[in-house]
Amino acid sequence: MYNRNFMRIAINLAKKNIGNTGINPSVACLIEKDNQIIGIGLTGESGRPHAEYNAMSKCKDQIKGSTVYVTMEPCSHEGATPSCARILAEAGVAKVVSPIMDPNPVVNGKGFEILKNSGVEVFIDKEHNEKAKRIIEGFSKKILTGKPFVTLKLASSLDGKIALNSGKSKWISGIESRRKTQLLRYRNDAIMVGSKTFIEDNPELSIRENFGRNNQPIRVLLSSDCKILPKGKIFDTLKSQKTIIFTGYKGKKNWSDWEKAGANLIQVKSTKNSLDLHAVLYQLGSMGISNLLVEGGANLSASLLNENLLDRIIIFYSGRIFGSSGISGISKLKGEKVFIEDYPHFFIEETRKYGNDLMVSWIKKSDNLESG
Amino acid sequence: MYNRNFMRIAINLAKKNIGNTGINPSVACLIEKDNQIIGIGLTGESGRPHAEYNAMSKCKDQIKGSTVYVTMEPCSHEGATPSCARILAEAGVAKVVSPIMDPNPVVNGKGFEILKNSGVEVFIDKEHNEKAKRIIEGFSKKILTGKPFVTLKLASSLDGKIALNSGKSKWISGIESRRKTQLLRYRNDAIMVGSKTFIEDNPELSIRENFGRNNQPIRVLLSSDCKILPKGKIFDTLKSQKTIIFTGYKGKKNWSDWEKAGANLIQVKSTKNSLDLHAVLYQLGSMGISNLLVEGGANLSASLLNENLLDRIIIFYSGRIFGSSGISGISKLKGEKVFIEDYPHFFIEETRKYGNDLMVSWIKKSDNLESG
Repeated sequence: MYNRNFMRIAINLAKKNIGNTGINPSVACLIEKDNQIIGIGLTGESGRPHAEYNAMSKCKDQIKGSTVYVTMEPCSHEGATPSCARILAEAGVAKVVSPIMDPNPVVNGKGFEILKNSGVEVFIDKEHNEKAKRIIEGFSKKILTGKPFVTLKLASSLDGKIALNSGKSKWISGIESRRKTQLLRYRNDAIMVGSKTFIEDNPELSIRENFGRNNQPIRVLLSSDCKILPKGKIFDTLKSQKTIIFTGYKGKKNWSDWEKAGANLIQVKSTKNSLDLHAVLYQLGSMGISNLLVEGGANLSASLLNENLLDRIIIFYSGRIFGSSGISGISKLKGEKVFIEDYPHFFIEETRKYGNDLMVSWIKKSDNLESG
Repeated sequence: MYNRNFMRIAINLAKKNIGNTGINPSVACLIEKDNQIIGIGLTGESGRPHAEYNAMSKCKDQIKGSTVYVTMEPCSHEGATPSCARILAEAGVAKVVSPIMDPNPVVNGKGFEILKNSGVEVFIDKEHNEKAKRIIEGFSKKILTGKPFVTLKLASSLDGKIALNSGKSKWISGIESRRKTQLLRYRNDAIMVGSKTFIEDNPELSIRENFGRNNQPIRVLLSSDCKILPKGKIFDTLKSQKTIIFTGYKGKKNWSDWEKAGANLIQVKSTKNSLDLHAVLYQLGSMGISNLLVEGGANLSASLLNENLLDRIIIFYSGRIFGSSGISGISKLKGEKVFIEDYPHFFIEETRKYGNDLMVSWIKKSDNLESG
């Protein structure tokens, strides 16, 4: 018997914990026996212990004959501790229900194999496949491509402008949208902005709302030259929130001030005015960043689009109208293509009202995120 | 007893018939007796007969003691024929259920009074108040202000651009959106475009889909000077679809060709580059136009916004991204305001997916449309 409500609970728990599980994906595990939940576990804050281990620790005596609902395939790698698949099998669980395989090539089905070979029934819950995939999208992207899953967030007028001609952008969106932005920050491992946004907006890029998270997302600044002076909110909070600056050339004066104050300065390939964004993303991936939120500005957004590096665009459309003198949310794209079909194309993933703003999540259709 | 299902049916019937009732609002009337529908009527194509009359004509023998569901207050004016309120009362109906008063000041409650004074029970169905108001929004606007209800329709990229830098705009939106646009045309009495759209897009502005309507909406062209040459799809179809051209000065060469071919040329006040849009709208109102659809371009849209003449903006956001070199959907607004709060503000009325496009209907909050 398969009770979809248990998987629904597990999915919701895993979703809520996104951004809080270090380099590992957010997984939830729920153990059921005689229609009673006897154990619930989530991936630990650093990515360890795994959700299955945490769930089992609460019901060791009762686990024999139980059904385990887990939002991703149990792991198969043996190390200092045995794999989750083996632990579950040896504990005598009767059945494991899971919507997706672990996309990690070293697992990718082997966890299910271990279970089956030990006589445990494995049920692939296709109903929750899409939701489960979305929860681990960052992990999947990173493990398969080396780069994080990149979400661009914009707040724009209904006619697509992110600021007045004067540069003023506070506040295009309402308080409900801004609170949702805090939640987006929570769910991402790092937040990235270009130097123009750093200079013009003096952002702090921290989580101010308390969603139960202790650590702050890593801040990532891009500056091909050295125009970002060692001052501002980010500079003042380098001690309390990790900050990485990518630059084309380290040997400039201000950088030493940034480094002394605690910033992590990384040099990557660059052309005259822009950094090699592939190099930046690979670097972030190698540092364990699975989910990256980009919060501006228009030039960085266009550069990411030009390099086909955006996975999702979340726009909060407000009811304001700025007209053509406002600043466009995305700068000029490279090349002058003749056909509309040649321009970047995203698809509606989700829409939701936040106060009087409309949030639209546009997603790139991609086949490089296969799992399960 | 009040059965909300009957009113729901009436509301849906009235809604479907918007755009098909001449200068009168679209009203539906449903007559119920012993829980059976004994008569249904809609406002006639020219606005006459009224819905009540049409419904009663189908059940004259049975009408005594029945309940009448009508989407707007029955009329009170006596002329060649008695008012609907009097006819209903004299026919012996027991009860009239209606969500709104007729906004026309010469009625505005007097229909209900006639019924009550004749011993007919009147029930105001507040549940359907908003929907009923929306159905007659054009009629309300015109009767109270002299001007039609103006809806701007745009198809834009997700970043607010209505065309590539080259001017190319076919097709930003998908086939489902374009079909919905046909329906919007159907529901409006007239369609207006600026001269630039006429010149660059050579539109026909007709209803090609067959929604059961025989007549085409009136086409309205604005041209302060005389740049619209007597050619193109509109010129070629002047015989089959009524076309009004507003100009600042009639005495130019090409206008006589337009007039000879059947266009209705109207001169209004104008400044150097633009017509007095208030004058245009009053003129259209006086000609019986209640609902006006504006289909571009960016300059006309900005001018209407500047004059506070837009009531609704329907945007079909496609998943394409054009970047800042694309053409903004709304041109520069007049004045350089300092605060975001000083820019035009609309509110989410409705959102709906059409294929991969997102239709968002933004509405201006207004207190000049009170009724019922």
